[in-house]
Amino acid sequence: MSVYNPINTAILTQLTAVVSPANISTAEAERQLRSHDMSQHAPCMSEVVVWPTTAQQAADVLCIANENRVPVTAWGAGSSLEGNPIPLFGGISLSMERMNHIIEVHANDFQVTVEAGLGYKDLNAKLARYGLFFAPDPGANASIGGMLANNAAGSRTVKYGATKDNVLAIEVALADGRLIQTGARSIKQASGYDLLHLFIGSEGTLGVITQATLKLMPVPTVMSSVVATFGTVATAVETVVAIRGSGLDVAALEFIGAKSAAILSREHGLDWGEYPTLLMEIHAAHAETAVLDIKLVREICEELGAIRIHTTTDAAERKQMWTARHHNFETKVRVFPDYKWQLMDIAVPISAYPELIAFISQTLDFYGLEGMMIGHAGDGNLHVEMPYKDEVTRQSTLQANDAIVDKAIALDGTSSGEHGVGIGKAKFMDREHGTAVAVMRELKQTLDPKGILNPGKIFPPKSEH
Amino acid sequence: MSVYNPINTAILTQLTAVVSPANISTAEAERQLRSHDMSQHAPCMSEVVVWPTTAQQAADVLCIANENRVPVTAWGAGSSLEGNPIPLFGGISLSMERMNHIIEVHANDFQVTVEAGLGYKDLNAKLARYGLFFAPDPGANASIGGMLANNAAGSRTVKYGATKDNVLAIEVALADGRLIQTGARSIKQASGYDLLHLFIGSEGTLGVITQATLKLMPVPTVMSSVVATFGTVATAVETVVAIRGSGLDVAALEFIGAKSAAILSREHGLDWGEYPTLLMEIHAAHAETAVLDIKLVREICEELGAIRIHTTTDAAERKQMWTARHHNFETKVRVFPDYKWQLMDIAVPISAYPELIAFISQTLDFYGLEGMMIGHAGDGNLHVEMPYKDEVTRQSTLQANDAIVDKAIALDGTSSGEHGVGIGKAKFMDREHGTAVAVMRELKQTLDPKGILNPGKIFPPKSEH
Repeated sequence: MSVYNPINTAILTQLTAVVSPANISTAEAERQLRSHDMSQHAPCMSEVVVWPTTAQQAADVLCIANENRVPVTAWGAGSSLEGNPIPLFGGISLSMERMNHIIEVHANDFQVTVEAGLGYKDLNAKLARYGLFFAPDPGANASIGGMLANNAAGSRTVKYGATKDNVLAIEVALADGRLIQTGARSIKQASGYDLLHLFIGSEGTLGVITQATLKLMPVPTVMSSVVATFGTVATAVETVVAIRGSGLDVAALEFIGAKSAAILSREHGLDWGEYPTLLMEIHAAHAETAVLDIKLVREICEELGAIRIHTTTDAAERKQMWTARHHNFETKVRVFPDYKWQLMDIAVPISAYPELIAFISQTLDFYGLEGMMIGHAGDGNLHVEMPYKDEVTRQSTLQANDAIVDKAIALDGTSSGEHGVGIGKAKFMDREHGTAVAVMRELKQTLDPKGILNPGKIFPPKSEH
Repeated sequence: MSVYNPINTAILTQLTAVVSPANISTAEAERQLRSHDMSQHAPCMSEVVVWPTTAQQAADVLCIANENRVPVTAWGAGSSLEGNPIPLFGGISLSMERMNHIIEVHANDFQVTVEAGLGYKDLNAKLARYGLFFAPDPGANASIGGMLANNAAGSRTVKYGATKDNVLAIEVALADGRLIQTGARSIKQASGYDLLHLFIGSEGTLGVITQATLKLMPVPTVMSSVVATFGTVATAVETVVAIRGSGLDVAALEFIGAKSAAILSREHGLDWGEYPTLLMEIHAAHAETAVLDIKLVREICEELGAIRIHTTTDAAERKQMWTARHHNFETKVRVFPDYKWQLMDIAVPISAYPELIAFISQTLDFYGLEGMMIGHAGDGNLHVEMPYKDEVTRQSTLQANDAIVDKAIALDGTSSGEHGVGIGKAKFMDREHGTAVAVMRELKQTLDPKGILNPGKIFPPKSEH
């Protein structure tokens, strides 16, 4: 039994007055489209989709929702992987899709101020002519607001940090309709509480981010890719630890398990073969530096027994490799058309990566599961993808999932490296954070006392009723 | 009229039972020593100094204080510059000085776990044999806990980030005596609210940090220093903007005003002369890279009209230069023995640095004040030091201070780049953060409902009564 009120005609009239009739819809097709993300979490429809076109409109929508106790779930691009934007309790799907403009490029400061609905790839396409780019790289064309809300990360986090490391200021609409600005455009900030980072990663449960000023990086002069193939998982993973330990500042350091490598190389016309593979990227300001860095990487790979090392600075070849990597999941979905997937996103300290990988192999064997590994090894992040068809196998994947997540936590790691908590990881919160979860709940209660913001996420169910 | 209760015998007995008689003192000398920091803010004595030796003891002290409504102000090394650890309302000075151990060096992960009372320089001395260092560089031998509480930064922030960018996990004692852990040892974390960054920079007003796991960096293979002298402030500052714009990843990029350069070079046996000066440091993994970077820096400086450019990789000479820079304030205090100082710590986007500097020069002229400028120019951070003897001049420095801070805020910057809010910046909070201050107050009320934690700091006075 929900504590929330259903959307009625009076509420619809109020909402329409805020956003205009062109920016609100109760059509099933629109609600259907925003009822699921890219995960296997069960879809759930909102009662109405609202597209604010200004931050004030977003705040006004929240104010109406709060007064009427109607849940509000923000929607970006739907590319998340833990059910984060699924409107579990119905109510309003607050789509930021029409707030997708660049407000200002501060080229001399390597900064840009954008609306939250702008796509990550769209932003970088527009920044290209300034020679700048927004570095956190989630793979998909996620919305900037979604990246902030989930603290998204990706292949390049090892060098440039996650989303949280690349934001200077945000504007946030609060549950009660207040609109606040927090942060500044100065790199250094030591003025009051860091509200910026409280909202980043809060998955729309504390407020809705409407605008952000992001740190940009200059597009590197030289970008090189290196592919190294290994005879065993152990040597590949040891190489990751050795490269990190060398102090080399690689821009990407990806581990691709043998099965994943075989599928990706076959489907994307590459010649990786079925071996544990490392895919690396090196960004350099000088051609000479790139040469030195590649030499060092090559030496480490050779020393640890790489079977084959291939280096390229050719743009087309690099693109082909990284397209394969970025389209990893879509590719597998296509190759296994009749399967569903249990996805996992865990991270550990880099020194624990070999132990984690060994544990995963044992666990998959124990449950008799097929499982493919691929991960941002450079920062200890790993995804395990377990395909299943039937309910028995699904149950096994869930058990394997729990065992592996517990192991990551036991290794001083986390249940979520970059996908957020959403629906799927809520059950691990107490185990991972202990008494700190109570503090999180107190903050939620303070900023959203009626619980209208993205209910059912982050906290285990009991907290929402 | 204070809302707090005085320390009485019963409370002393309770506190003694927690920390043992050796770790508690009401001696005037001990209280005197912890009544002031390095700023000119008026000293104020606690009623008792307590030295916990474990996190649980710190939490238990807070529990007693909370039950008895006694204020608690954490004490680290007393090197802060905004009165942050001054016990304005008396009560307990919670000194972390005896919790000064390294708990574990995770060398393969480039991490260390330490107790909060450990000194920054002491930590780096102990890390030297691992070839690692904790990069945020506040100059003084600040305690790690104090650095975290104030989000300290310094010369190397331009490359390595501020304290907040170099912490993975903390343990915090809360006002009600709970002890929580937040964060993890994995680089990537997207699991629940970012409590870590809420406590970092909260200046002991939300909790007391008792332990932290810090990110470390490998000691660079090659460290070079470059000093460039300019005929005018404008050309020096344009050079800062140009170097940043070039994408060069300098490890330090300091602006030293002509008067500051003259004093520091004279007192520390350097040959800088009385010119606007840039002091830079370049960290490189290869000798070849260092050469390329220095070449580029030199070209930019020459192009913008540097009078003199001097480069060195000699360790002794580098040390001499950086000792001068780090001992800037102590040197000036010695050179002007009869003066007091109004210090300022502001930061703006780098593109606004020239306008800020020009405004400061005009403002100092307008008020007929002596003012020395020195700052971490690479990230738009600037300190203005205004010496004064008499009350009339002091009032002028306060007016100049307000005008300059307002200007920094108007330029999309901040009232505090690295010293925190403490006492001196509280009056700017509303102007800088607007309605977000109300949210900060709500969080304070949630986590410290009785207001026992470091009262009188961050928020303008009305909030504390």
